Amino acid sequence: MKEKKKIDLNLKINKQKRLIEKELKKTLVNISAPKDLKSVMSYAVLNGGKRIRPFIVSEVSKLYKVNYSTYKYPSMAIEMAHCFSLIYDDLPCMDDDDLRRGKPSVHIKFNEANALLGGASLLIFAYNTLSSKKFIIDKKKKLLLLESFSNSIGHEGMLAGQFLDLEAENPKFKINLKKLSEIQEKKTALLIAFCCYVGGILGNATKKELAILFDFGLILGKIFQITDDLLDKEGNQKLTGKKINKDETLNKATIIRVKGINFAKKELKKNSSDAKNKLSYLNKNTEVLSQLIDYICSRTS
Amino acid sequence: MKEKKKIDLNLKINKQKRLIEKELKKTLVNISAPKDLKSVMSYAVLNGGKRIRPFIVSEVSKLYKVNYSTYKYPSMAIEMAHCFSLIYDDLPCMDDDDLRRGKPSVHIKFNEANALLGGASLLIFAYNTLSSKKFIIDKKKKLLLLESFSNSIGHEGMLAGQFLDLEAENPKFKINLKKLSEIQEKKTALLIAFCCYVGGILGNATKKELAILFDFGLILGKIFQITDDLLDKEGNQKLTGKKINKDETLNKATIIRVKGINFAKKELKKNSSDAKNKLSYLNKNTEVLSQLIDYICSRTS
Repeated sequence: MKEKKKIDLNLKINKQKRLIEKELKKTLVNISAPKDLKSVMSYAVLNGGKRIRPFIVSEVSKLYKVNYSTYKYPSMAIEMAHCFSLIYDDLPCMDDDDLRRGKPSVHIKFNEANALLGGASLLIFAYNTLSSKKFIIDKKKKLLLLESFSNSIGHEGMLAGQFLDLEAENPKFKINLKKLSEIQEKKTALLIAFCCYVGGILGNATKKELAILFDFGLILGKIFQITDDLLDKEGNQKLTGKKINKDETLNKATIIRVKGINFAKKELKKNSSDAKNKLSYLNKNTEVLSQLIDYICSRTS
Repeated sequence: MKEKKKIDLNLKINKQKRLIEKELKKTLVNISAPKDLKSVMSYAVLNGGKRIRPFIVSEVSKLYKVNYSTYKYPSMAIEMAHCFSLIYDDLPCMDDDDLRRGKPSVHIKFNEANALLGGASLLIFAYNTLSSKKFIIDKKKKLLLLESFSNSIGHEGMLAGQFLDLEAENPKFKINLKKLSEIQEKKTALLIAFCCYVGGILGNATKKELAILFDFGLILGKIFQITDDLLDKEGNQKLTGKKINKDETLNKATIIRVKGINFAKKELKKNSSDAKNKLSYLNKNTEVLSQLIDYICSRTS
């Protein structure tokens, strides 16, 4: 029975992945950027990836009967911002990674300047997509999404997380569980919380539901980060598409560095249970999201 | 008489500069970013600069009786995006410049990763400022400004210009006046045109007026770029705060490389006259903007 459920979820995830990739491809083909800049942007976005963030947006949106033609815009914007962050993460002055999803990183495929400008262009294009006239929703909601988007990816969110993550590489930096949680919440969880929040906003969720969705997203983000830390230690390079044990080499702030593998695995279980608990408060059919928690917990890439 | 006018304009520019710098400082002090990230962002924004773009926003806004409490938000957003572009321009993989406004560039003062993340944070903060609830204007207008902002700084605008500018450094790149115009329009002029457009949108300008304002901005941007090219050749390093003759060293696409100094000076005169002509169609008291053209033409920094 469990096996069947997993197969269904894989199908669902892949279906949504194909859909959003088709949309991203169509959108990127039509932009009027200089030819080579367009190539950089397209390579960065269409270079594989599980598209888990768009999947989360779609599943939360579906809880509220929001159509694909509406939620596809924030889905694309979020994925573009995510891809922007990956380009930057891989740069020599950041994590210096030549491989991403088993293929040359953007600055290796092109060059550093191209990676920088392509990344920033994607970030701006994410805003363009979210503020676009084609994305037809109430203007107040659209502005709210734009503000929340900035909060989740800017100096209070993802970029702050990347910044703190680099600071914590310094051997003199005294890391503890509280500081680690702050880094991982900003770096990963806030954008995932935004994915959940988007679906709620589009679907006219109540304030209480929005708070539950946001908190659920934060826990899901935490789960995502713990499994990322574990995969770096115990994963298979062929499946992850990136070098193993890199966190230790770079002295990264991970839950494993702070508390060890066993603690990480216990935390994973605890958060998985917390996340499912949050979902139960929505009083909706959240079976797919619940399965997604298990899927992320047992992911191999 | 002419001298008196110039002194008045300097006063006006400096007054607006103080005002917007105070506002930027106040805004940046209040953000809840990690301490060191906040330092990078503040250093990049509060590191001098003439604040010509906010001045243009203010002068066009004043033509339409728009208040400072309204136009200060787009002014700040534009200045942040401009500062973001300067950080990136100076990076080793771009123009590799250690000096900006006579002080260490951001990546020299801090490091490359900090410069990258601080720059991108400023870009996101620019969007945050423009979409902020505090910026009280009609929601439709705000969304229009957000879309136009992306168009002027993204893959169709400033970043495309920076991208093409780097491509044109290649000795094999065949530059001509048409290609040069495209690079400079994207790299510099579109954001200046947006400054003019903002004032018109805020002030309920007619479609015809908006088109005039935008075209005026494009010409002003062209003037700005030509004087920039000339300053690199004939300027005083103490006044410009950056190395002289760098364009030739980097094989930059400049009007001087394509057509020589004399042609550049003629173009400056022609564009100056065109810009004044555009202003005349507005049927408003555009004396300050007209003086601004002369000010930019004769700038020494």
